[in-house]
Amino acid sequence: MEEIHRQLEVFRRGCVDILPGEKALIERLEEGRPLRIKLGVDPTISDLHLGHTVVLRKLGQLQELGHEIDFVIGSFTARIGDPTGRSRTRPHLSAEEVRRYAETYQTQAFRILDRERTKVFYNAEWFDPMTFSDVIGLASRVTVARIIEREDFARRLAEGRPVHLHELLYPLLQAYDSVALRSDVEIGGTDQRFNILAGRDLQESFGQPPQIVLLLPLLIGTDGTRKMSKSYDNYIGITEPPLEIYSKTMSIPDEIMLSWFELLTDLPIARLTEIKEGLADGSLHPKVAKKLLARTLVAQYHDEVQAKDAQESWEQLHEPGGSRGRAPLDVPEVEIPPPTGEGGKLWVVEFIDRLRFTTRKGDPISRSEIRRLIQQKGLTIDGVPIESTSAMVEPYDGMIVSKGNKQFRRVRIPEGG
Amino acid sequence: MEEIHRQLEVFRRGCVDILPGEKALIERLEEGRPLRIKLGVDPTISDLHLGHTVVLRKLGQLQELGHEIDFVIGSFTARIGDPTGRSRTRPHLSAEEVRRYAETYQTQAFRILDRERTKVFYNAEWFDPMTFSDVIGLASRVTVARIIEREDFARRLAEGRPVHLHELLYPLLQAYDSVALRSDVEIGGTDQRFNILAGRDLQESFGQPPQIVLLLPLLIGTDGTRKMSKSYDNYIGITEPPLEIYSKTMSIPDEIMLSWFELLTDLPIARLTEIKEGLADGSLHPKVAKKLLARTLVAQYHDEVQAKDAQESWEQLHEPGGSRGRAPLDVPEVEIPPPTGEGGKLWVVEFIDRLRFTTRKGDPISRSEIRRLIQQKGLTIDGVPIESTSAMVEPYDGMIVSKGNKQFRRVRIPEGG
Repeated sequence: MEEIHRQLEVFRRGCVDILPGEKALIERLEEGRPLRIKLGVDPTISDLHLGHTVVLRKLGQLQELGHEIDFVIGSFTARIGDPTGRSRTRPHLSAEEVRRYAETYQTQAFRILDRERTKVFYNAEWFDPMTFSDVIGLASRVTVARIIEREDFARRLAEGRPVHLHELLYPLLQAYDSVALRSDVEIGGTDQRFNILAGRDLQESFGQPPQIVLLLPLLIGTDGTRKMSKSYDNYIGITEPPLEIYSKTMSIPDEIMLSWFELLTDLPIARLTEIKEGLADGSLHPKVAKKLLARTLVAQYHDEVQAKDAQESWEQLHEPGGSRGRAPLDVPEVEIPPPTGEGGKLWVVEFIDRLRFTTRKGDPISRSEIRRLIQQKGLTIDGVPIESTSAMVEPYDGMIVSKGNKQFRRVRIPEGG
Repeated sequence: MEEIHRQLEVFRRGCVDILPGEKALIERLEEGRPLRIKLGVDPTISDLHLGHTVVLRKLGQLQELGHEIDFVIGSFTARIGDPTGRSRTRPHLSAEEVRRYAETYQTQAFRILDRERTKVFYNAEWFDPMTFSDVIGLASRVTVARIIEREDFARRLAEGRPVHLHELLYPLLQAYDSVALRSDVEIGGTDQRFNILAGRDLQESFGQPPQIVLLLPLLIGTDGTRKMSKSYDNYIGITEPPLEIYSKTMSIPDEIMLSWFELLTDLPIARLTEIKEGLADGSLHPKVAKKLLARTLVAQYHDEVQAKDAQESWEQLHEPGGSRGRAPLDVPEVEIPPPTGEGGKLWVVEFIDRLRFTTRKGDPISRSEIRRLIQQKGLTIDGVPIESTSAMVEPYDGMIVSKGNKQFRRVRIPEGG
């Protein structure tokens, strides 16, 4: 019983909800065997970001308790995509693409999970052999009313926007994965509540004990408002270079810092409480706390040495009174030949243009964008915003220029220039 | 053009609706080729009744114009049935049962249609090979809103009664049959409006010219109120014996007689008008008209001689002032040994009991039911209702006893009795 309560602590930490309740989970744990804990994986994810790690870190903790982690790669659905072509979130992928994506996903996920104690399934294995008649049998187990309760369906139907009939079949797919694997527990973000509960219903209709649902919060992105997502460009990829992770973390609003500590780090609960209290009574400066968070995250996905270096680089750029002057690490160098006219100076727009900053999409930024960025104080030289679009710049070797707090360039003046 | 208008007359007669309009039909006829005209056949029908013949007779007329009739036996759906077991109208049939039903259906249908100019398809041919992924592709072509517009779905959802997800797939099946056959026209009763229109939409989404919809009225049954249906026991099967067809026809209310003439006979329109006017101005007695209808129907499904005999038998039973006395045809004989006591008489309940009349379900009627029938004037001897449950009867050879106007018995007194 003591062991079960120890386990319960781990299940519970950071969870938004355990459905239908902790009692069901306790009963399942009392069976004394490793539980089959399922995570449905969208194989269109190429790069894991911190948002994905919330669930993966929880799985890592449960794995350490001796439970079995089942990854289900949604290979069947991904291969079909959305036949209407209307859904951006359901591109059609070839079997080869699915396999490649799934491998990239696993390589990254196994930075957090133990590969040896994780089983990987592709759901095409059970959906490919199904006939039309099997589909009808499956669909007969759920009611239309129950499916169109789902928030996005209900809203679109109410607004008169089209919901195509095949979309109603998708929740059944994820639900049937739990039947195929006889899952004891399914884990997901709060946005998965409906789909995971559908799995319970379907398991019951197949005479299986319904899985327990573990819902975790959605991580707020670096913008401090929306959930972290590639499409909102408010994410930090776990394979990004140390300084990127560090800088982006330093850019988050203070308000979400504590939830990042809780969901993304292994700091003990006692330490979290200290930080929380320190911030509340003013004895801990938010910037100091945030530096701890940023450094902890870099250390998790790189190592302690790189975390320290990233911190120093960041401080050089953002704290001019500090150890400014030393060239930061990890910053791409751009060679700028010394200007010949204008007393060795360059027009600022011309200068920035040569540094080849890029847009979110990766295209070089245009001159009109450069002007706009300057007006918005979005470009800095050695941490100081450029004030005017008509300024003249005298480049020197080691000068650090940044666009926002995400892209950095170091100027190099060629030898003998 | 004259030819097309002649054809249009045939298409139009008795039709409730031609969708999207006659213009579309004219354009299709102008292509100058035989049109593919589809009828979806529910293979759970074992005995055709007059209600089914409304559509079949129309197909017979169109066939004579040179068009191709395509029967689609719903073998796929019938084999699946309703997996929830909730729908009485969707029993699960084995492949062998479907085949047997379909053959019975065809044997009967070819009393009306020309077998040589009718093609028969089983839709399992195109649905059996479909995979889950094909089903998703198919379902993606329709919207949920469009499907749940269908009256029975809309009503059940509004009333909070369950609609199971697979049910939404069924209209797609019938619709896809039209795609598989590239149908030019689909014919059906007015209750098929939604399903046949769904075929148009699906054909368009497959880039085919959408079929023209021919809707025929539903025949009112012998009770004069509800559509003819086996489950309402208000039907006349086309394989029933002559006297049954004749008697049941004579039992219909006068109000529906004209629609029966129009939908079930080949009488020319001019003749129909005469009958209509005769009934309206009182120059034609309804009973005379109804006898013409009854005799015409018997002649259609048997022959002229049997039609004449049936009429005579009926008249003997129902018109005591007429040619009463001669034994009717087709009436089961029951041997009654001459009673020994009571002056050669039998108690009426005892007498009727020996005649073994049956209930609708085919069980022998009980003595208490006999009493009730007598009280309701539902039993006649030689066309005269039995007045009292305490009457005494003296049976004689050739006595005709009837229960309602559907069951008849002829008494036979054994020789030397």
